[in-house]
Amino acid sequence: MNTLTVAMIGHGFMGAAHSQGWRVAPHFFDLDAQPVMELVVGRSNVEASASQWGWNSTATDWREAIERDDIDIVDIVTPGDSHAEIAIAALDAGKHVLCEKPLANTVAEAEAMTDAATRAAARGVFAMTGFTFRRVPAATFARDLVASGRLGRIYQVRASYLQDWLADPNAPFVWRLDKSRAGSGALGDIGAHAVDLSQFITGSRLTQVSGIIETLVPERSAPGGGTAPVTVDDLALFTGRFDTGVLANFEATRFATGRKNALRVEVSGSEGAISFDLENMNSLNYYDATAPEGERGFTSISVTEAVHPYIDAWWPPGHILGYEHGFSNQVKDFVDGITSGTQPTPSFADGLQVQRVLAAVEASSANGSAWLAV
Amino acid sequence: MNTLTVAMIGHGFMGAAHSQGWRVAPHFFDLDAQPVMELVVGRSNVEASASQWGWNSTATDWREAIERDDIDIVDIVTPGDSHAEIAIAALDAGKHVLCEKPLANTVAEAEAMTDAATRAAARGVFAMTGFTFRRVPAATFARDLVASGRLGRIYQVRASYLQDWLADPNAPFVWRLDKSRAGSGALGDIGAHAVDLSQFITGSRLTQVSGIIETLVPERSAPGGGTAPVTVDDLALFTGRFDTGVLANFEATRFATGRKNALRVEVSGSEGAISFDLENMNSLNYYDATAPEGERGFTSISVTEAVHPYIDAWWPPGHILGYEHGFSNQVKDFVDGITSGTQPTPSFADGLQVQRVLAAVEASSANGSAWLAV
Amino acid sequence: MNTLTVAMIGHGFMGAAHSQGWRVAPHFFDLDAQPVMELVVGRSNVEASASQWGWNSTATDWREAIERDDIDIVDIVTPGDSHAEIAIAALDAGKHVLCEKPLANTVAEAEAMTDAATRAAARGVFAMTGFTFRRVPAATFARDLVASGRLGRIYQVRASYLQDWLADPNAPFVWRLDKSRAGSGALGDIGAHAVDLSQFITGSRLTQVSGIIETLVPERSAPGGGTAPVTVDDLALFTGRFDTGVLANFEATRFATGRKNALRVEVSGSEGAISFDLENMNSLNYYDATAPEGERGFTSISVTEAVHPYIDAWWPPGHILGYEHGFSNQVKDFVDGITSGTQPTPSFADGLQVQRVLAAVEASSANGSAWLAV
Amino acid sequence: MNTLTVAMIGHGFMGAAHSQGWRVAPHFFDLDAQPVMELVVGRSNVEASASQWGWNSTATDWREAIERDDIDIVDIVTPGDSHAEIAIAALDAGKHVLCEKPLANTVAEAEAMTDAATRAAARGVFAMTGFTFRRVPAATFARDLVASGRLGRIYQVRASYLQDWLADPNAPFVWRLDKSRAGSGALGDIGAHAVDLSQFITGSRLTQVSGIIETLVPERSAPGGGTAPVTVDDLALFTGRFDTGVLANFEATRFATGRKNALRVEVSGSEGAISFDLENMNSLNYYDATAPEGERGFTSISVTEAVHPYIDAWWPPGHILGYEHGFSNQVKDFVDGITSGTQPTPSFADGLQVQRVLAAVEASSANGSAWLAV
Repeated sequence: MNTLTVAMIGHGFMGAAHSQGWRVAPHFFDLDAQPVMELVVGRSNVEASASQWGWNSTATDWREAIERDDIDIVDIVTPGDSHAEIAIAALDAGKHVLCEKPLANTVAEAEAMTDAATRAAARGVFAMTGFTFRRVPAATFARDLVASGRLGRIYQVRASYLQDWLADPNAPFVWRLDKSRAGSGALGDIGAHAVDLSQFITGSRLTQVSGIIETLVPERSAPGGGTAPVTVDDLALFTGRFDTGVLANFEATRFATGRKNALRVEVSGSEGAISFDLENMNSLNYYDATAPEGERGFTSISVTEAVHPYIDAWWPPGHILGYEHGFSNQVKDFVDGITSGTQPTPSFADGLQVQRVLAAVEASSANGSAWLAV
Repeated sequence: MNTLTVAMIGHGFMGAAHSQGWRVAPHFFDLDAQPVMELVVGRSNVEASASQWGWNSTATDWREAIERDDIDIVDIVTPGDSHAEIAIAALDAGKHVLCEKPLANTVAEAEAMTDAATRAAARGVFAMTGFTFRRVPAATFARDLVASGRLGRIYQVRASYLQDWLADPNAPFVWRLDKSRAGSGALGDIGAHAVDLSQFITGSRLTQVSGIIETLVPERSAPGGGTAPVTVDDLALFTGRFDTGVLANFEATRFATGRKNALRVEVSGSEGAISFDLENMNSLNYYDATAPEGERGFTSISVTEAVHPYIDAWWPPGHILGYEHGFSNQVKDFVDGITSGTQPTPSFADGLQVQRVLAAVEASSANGSAWLAV
Repeated sequence: MNTLTVAMIGHGFMGAAHSQGWRVAPHFFDLDAQPVMELVVGRSNVEASASQWGWNSTATDWREAIERDDIDIVDIVTPGDSHAEIAIAALDAGKHVLCEKPLANTVAEAEAMTDAATRAAARGVFAMTGFTFRRVPAATFARDLVASGRLGRIYQVRASYLQDWLADPNAPFVWRLDKSRAGSGALGDIGAHAVDLSQFITGSRLTQVSGIIETLVPERSAPGGGTAPVTVDDLALFTGRFDTGVLANFEATRFATGRKNALRVEVSGSEGAISFDLENMNSLNYYDATAPEGERGFTSISVTEAVHPYIDAWWPPGHILGYEHGFSNQVKDFVDGITSGTQPTPSFADGLQVQRVLAAVEASSANGSAWLAV
Repeated sequence: MNTLTVAMIGHGFMGAAHSQGWRVAPHFFDLDAQPVMELVVGRSNVEASASQWGWNSTATDWREAIERDDIDIVDIVTPGDSHAEIAIAALDAGKHVLCEKPLANTVAEAEAMTDAATRAAARGVFAMTGFTFRRVPAATFARDLVASGRLGRIYQVRASYLQDWLADPNAPFVWRLDKSRAGSGALGDIGAHAVDLSQFITGSRLTQVSGIIETLVPERSAPGGGTAPVTVDDLALFTGRFDTGVLANFEATRFATGRKNALRVEVSGSEGAISFDLENMNSLNYYDATAPEGERGFTSISVTEAVHPYIDAWWPPGHILGYEHGFSNQVKDFVDGITSGTQPTPSFADGLQVQRVLAAVEASSANGSAWLAV
């Protein structure tokens, strides 16, 4: 069987999740090429990561991955400030690239990355943005229901991503609170998922936004003592209009006390509705407005049946998937794209478009919540 | 025992609910005066309403209620366009007034009503706005938890009122879709409740808003044939800032397919959170962020214990209240205010303030979602 | 309009609920005769009850109700030890009788009552057992779904009634713990509801049972000091077989910590299932096994639509009913039976059959859980 | 690092789950010995399984695993009829054994296996029964809460395992319906889990049972045409008494239409309660009866915090685990037992005790539900 040799750049929490994706996917999906977990790159402690997660070799400089001829795929899981440089170099060197979201810290970087992806695609080299939550079976199934027309005319979308890991005012400063590293705060980290998922499920794109972002706790205790300023948003509230004219409201926050990982998308249509919540990720709530009168209600569908997306590779009905399975599903789709010569989605262009939405929200916030085109 | 003789002006759906409130309250609460259901006023079929709901007499002109010396209380449940005229006349005539929300169709009307209420209060005559959902025990209990400081610093509020009775594009035209009668659409009808309840629970007031309102189905089949234009909003999305600086997002819609009566308020604080949903109105979800690590989570409190607001008048634990009990609880609070000589809340001034919020949302929508002071 | 003059015997918690039923029903339902709340009978403090609940007159001896020619209906809400004597006397005197469940404290009493009811019915005088929870719209709707064949072949039934008001070992002794007053404990008080409701919903009857009853806290502090022995069961676990051959498991307990009022019935069939829980009494969960593959799941139906049982008399969709509405619905059905000359259900014969089930469970428990015919 | 070379006997659905456990565990847990996935044994198509699941070699006869000196661990995932022979041979040959539940098809087999395990343990060779659901973090956490005394005096246990994969009367015959292969039906397959989990969580053992088992669909279409008789139970309903005197009710069924994988255990105590449902396996519902009055309710704890059992090896709060993680957690506990020289639990003796409970239920069913000692 063919192989695809992988180098992963970065080795934090996302590195663990991606490693699990690479390791597990080939044992559940029939892939036309076998991923080989060859190289992991990190500036410190990378030997430990390689040992724990099963990578064959290590490096401290990402350029080594680019220079090695045996590397087919570069998987980028570093903070956003290094995405552009690595991805462009990898693509130009003929490596397929999977890059974690958000695609970059600025629209300009994302544009340059998209240009590189376009050049690469012409040579059969593909780039993909890691919006993993599209790969949650219930989210894909929601997309399928909408695409099939089952919801009729779409009226509205409500989307949010609620976490609470900063609700404790004594939670310490971390790199995700530093704009120079993270690019933005709740908006880019989790709001990006809400934007991508709502676009994915509805099959439409946000073209205008009006919003406000805010920092609630402006400084936090620094690891080395003293305090460090929080330079990103804690909270983003915005309204968007899709190219279909449909309005949507969005919230991204790390201060929703008690909500741990609530990525929610609800779509209301003339003939039905779907409601998804990542905290209950193996289910989709579906309302069929065409059901007989008196029998309507939200149906809690356990998206664990063989007919559901991705599921025939996994377990019997009622045996649920966890957080990490999306990463295996993502590997499957990425490898399928590469081996079939078909652009996998979301592409870098898709990632760039999300980036532009986020940038427009920031700009709107700076302009009194004026409506701005994406 | 003293009596309080009541005249109710109007006899639609709200008339049924208010009648039930007047009839039932005295049998569950110890009141210092006994309400007498004396007169119901309606332009047509009022005899049938009187017979069905148990009013002693009828009239077709509301002025009769004002002129009758034996009437102590005027209860206004007409559409919003007649609230001001009736309420002001009644107050000036020395009648206590309970007026359904929204207080009026315009801020000017609401101001005049509030002036009348101020004049009346000086004479011991009281006016109250009918934001009944404050009287749902779980909502009052939420207010109590916030007021006690249990949530710590308040970070955010999310509030919505989701219904779907217009999601069917073939639903016919009704008076609530006519701006001249209803004043506004989802914004005034149900958004008003979301605004009032979030202010009530947090004990603070919205001072600025930014939002958008929209009509999704611009005309509907008219009862007499042909179509009639929908002149009110179907949907309102807005962001508000409280006097405490706290941000809140709001949604009011009649197009949330599958959501029948979902008035929701969630408050996130540094030490806890509460989450209320009228569709599950006998429960309050409370998250205690100070609980031992590993034991935190939303607690679903059945607000049916004798220690909870209003409950000792009703049933044993676990025996739930319905929609209409709020109207009995409201009668209790209104009558208590009158008999004790204490202004009941929400006052007309409170109702006016909500009206100003709604007007600011409409103005913001007309101004590209600019932030406007309330 | 015709009237039906009512005397209520007893005035505890059930008296409050029945009073509310008599008062409210005529204002929501079109009845062919108007109930008049004429007489309430109680051995002590009955004046206060009459005043609070709106009865015109009082007596301390129930025989007065029988002797008064103007009394048409006798409504019995006393403890079970007096049901038989009162009901038989009332029926023999030509009064219609509504009797709270369980019908009696012994099968022999229930048989005598049923004989009296049979005699009375021949003269157009009707007796009804107060299994009020049949009148919860979601329960009636569940019955309708099963009766329509929507569930296909019925495989199994699981039924329970879980409360926790005795879970506190320091909860004091009350009359419900005294076998001579209450007849039995959890079994008769709440297990009776589980038996009746499961029979009602499935349209079949238990013919055999095997079970065990147990007392967990054998004595409790007495109101006057010292302790009193608990002479009834705290807990009943039993299995039953319906006349259709279907097996069912039952649990009745007052020690299900955290469960306040969880009367649950689930019916599993070859083409679907229904699941009802009184703690969420305005909803019915319905599973349609014939729905398209991948779209199956329990649908949470808000049983608040005009097409649902009893609802057109009440409020718009999504506006829920409370505990007490079942008593108004019961009055409607009882009065309809009387005015139309049709036996209302559940009859005394139905109540007797439940009594026999309970007696068989007690006997089975005393015989090592042997299967006994009902 | 030391290694532990594993041979897995059998390669059906359980083989996939165990393979995933062996592969993934070492990448998340710090193990003192590294499992090597060396040999998979199956009578047909075993090459494909080895290739898919990543085993180094294959065999068609399980004796090969016993004979190979390099094999340290034998993992048995065959149907129950072969457990005894393989396990005893492996233990006698000095191999550690992990054996899927139920331990055997008869008590006699399970006794022989336990004898072999006792002999082996004397030589530092360990046997473990694969009751994987003990390793669901929320189940372990429930056990911890009970063990800590937080629930006070335990009053009752209710346990069930509800599936519906046979509710379709047209579902075809499979080996699990053949008593000679499977030993028993719902009782042994899933009832065993309910018994084990309720004993694990409460820390006590069933000593008496009374119950009934039944087959609802006595024959099904055979794969090769015609029909085959179903020789196992479809449904088991039983009551048990723990050594503490506490009563519990149990249900195991494959006919609970709409319930896919509902292994539920609820424990009611004087100071609290826990309620677990495998369909919502990342949460535990905990009721604290000592919380302030008015604030009590079931708290839905997301058992995904670092302080929860097993979780620090996995993901951040709110990032859920799936069905298969229990198998990794089981590998960790089994390997820890081996490397530390400590008997892992549940032992074969524990498995035998469950087997005796199941046998007693069958015997009780055959004896009119008489109470029988385990």
